[in-house]
Amino acid sequence: MSTAKSPAPADGQRPVAGGTMRVRILRAEPGLRAERDDRVAVEAPLEIQLHHPALGPEPISFGTTMRTPGDDERLAAGLLYGEGIVERAGDIEAIESSTRRPNVVNVRLRASVQIAPATAAPARRFSAGSSCGVCGTTGLDAAIARAAATVIAGTGGIALPTLLSLPARMRESQARFGDTGGIHAAALFDLQGNLLELAEDVGRHNAFDKLVGESLLAGRLPLAEHVVLLSGRASFELVQKALRAGVPVLAAIGAPSSLAVNLAVAAGLTLAGFLRADHCNVYANPQRISG
Amino acid sequence: MSTAKSPAPADGQRPVAGGTMRVRILRAEPGLRAERDDRVAVEAPLEIQLHHPALGPEPISFGTTMRTPGDDERLAAGLLYGEGIVERAGDIEAIESSTRRPNVVNVRLRASVQIAPATAAPARRFSAGSSCGVCGTTGLDAAIARAAATVIAGTGGIALPTLLSLPARMRESQARFGDTGGIHAAALFDLQGNLLELAEDVGRHNAFDKLVGESLLAGRLPLAEHVVLLSGRASFELVQKALRAGVPVLAAIGAPSSLAVNLAVAAGLTLAGFLRADHCNVYANPQRISG
Repeated sequence: MSTAKSPAPADGQRPVAGGTMRVRILRAEPGLRAERDDRVAVEAPLEIQLHHPALGPEPISFGTTMRTPGDDERLAAGLLYGEGIVERAGDIEAIESSTRRPNVVNVRLRASVQIAPATAAPARRFSAGSSCGVCGTTGLDAAIARAAATVIAGTGGIALPTLLSLPARMRESQARFGDTGGIHAAALFDLQGNLLELAEDVGRHNAFDKLVGESLLAGRLPLAEHVVLLSGRASFELVQKALRAGVPVLAAIGAPSSLAVNLAVAAGLTLAGFLRADHCNVYANPQRISG
Repeated sequence: MSTAKSPAPADGQRPVAGGTMRVRILRAEPGLRAERDDRVAVEAPLEIQLHHPALGPEPISFGTTMRTPGDDERLAAGLLYGEGIVERAGDIEAIESSTRRPNVVNVRLRASVQIAPATAAPARRFSAGSSCGVCGTTGLDAAIARAAATVIAGTGGIALPTLLSLPARMRESQARFGDTGGIHAAALFDLQGNLLELAEDVGRHNAFDKLVGESLLAGRLPLAEHVVLLSGRASFELVQKALRAGVPVLAAIGAPSSLAVNLAVAAGLTLAGFLRADHCNVYANPQRISG
């Protein structure tokens, strides 16, 4: 098989090198607000297109995953192996990336590979890891555009000391994390820092969904005067969920991805990461954080 | 709308309470091997079945997600809101869980809810968070059974001091993590602790797929004399990928889930978690760890 190296992807408007994106952040500590250069991991969609004699001249989309660009051929090969489509390197004639379409990888399967009907059906979609909310959706670009077109109108702000107090308040209520050390949480606070709801789940997307589901059933949506805190990182999907719920401030104990930052900037969402008791990094719309 | 509380699910053979599962582990430190009781977060599939007048008498499966049981109604409501199926609580007539089928939640939508054809198509599947590898598969139980039926034959063992040295060796090569603090890694080592490959990605599933893809293309599969180290937690999907690649020892910096432990025990995979320089917890098949 042959491979062609992927180029650095066009991700947002800023330079990308080696899977990371340069961002300008606000480092916020009590008594200090300082702009700094920082880097976040690049998150961008990759669509895998399968070519096989049985499929005719046109490729079919095997699915789209949100990934960090750089090893797309390996990722495609590993995904197809994991899904049972290929069993050995010889099943793959070629894996081709193109500078014209950096978020597509073309995999040419040999005629000897058995393609089950389910594989060939265009409706078949998968998501790997961080892409759950776009799974089953053929138009990932449309989902990104839709999220970016959202405008968070809420002006409700939060004082920095209150924001910095949230991790400790969430941690006190994470009973299952205390027991296992291995479960994510999402917490809903009001702008005064009162904990309203907490959800725990092995999946960080699920934890956020549980929080939103509770708010939906309670008639509390949109969450225009609230802060959501995530125990892990903030990726595209989680910003998407925040926008859908109308949350003006999303904070994470972990790091944001490039797409999370770009979406938050575009949508007017305040996005804070690496939230600790004594500092945080603000990646988008710091005007809602006062003091 | 009305809800019925989910019962504690039947997850493996051991008691489950409040979203955690009791496990017997081996605490391994230099000079110490001690059995202990511990708890891991429960991971189990949840299928969302949609009922709607336009769908006829039979429900359709909206998809399956791997979740921690306990707030299934909220999770279902939040997922359906996130996917744009419902817009308000009033769109939902009822959400019903059943003790007979603890991993299924039934959502009855009102006739006024518009169901797009894509929603109703049985082929439509999504995955939330940790369930990527089972997305697009109608038989999640079959996937679990298949993984559990795998038998890792490799007897290749690793010395405890070597195992404990792996996180530092991986960390040295995590260039993007060093830049961003927010990107996962998967690393392939031989049993002597030599780093053979490292992959980084915002998605932990992707990082493992990249590693396996590289090994596939290099003709290195199965990885019968190797150890894979994950920078995060070990869930069902990641154990499934390890089994598929024939890895005898899977180690994680983070915690395993209940399903990860159950699968590793069943398949003969050595599973270590909370791997640190001075200790680790072994959840399954400790016989491959010597010294």
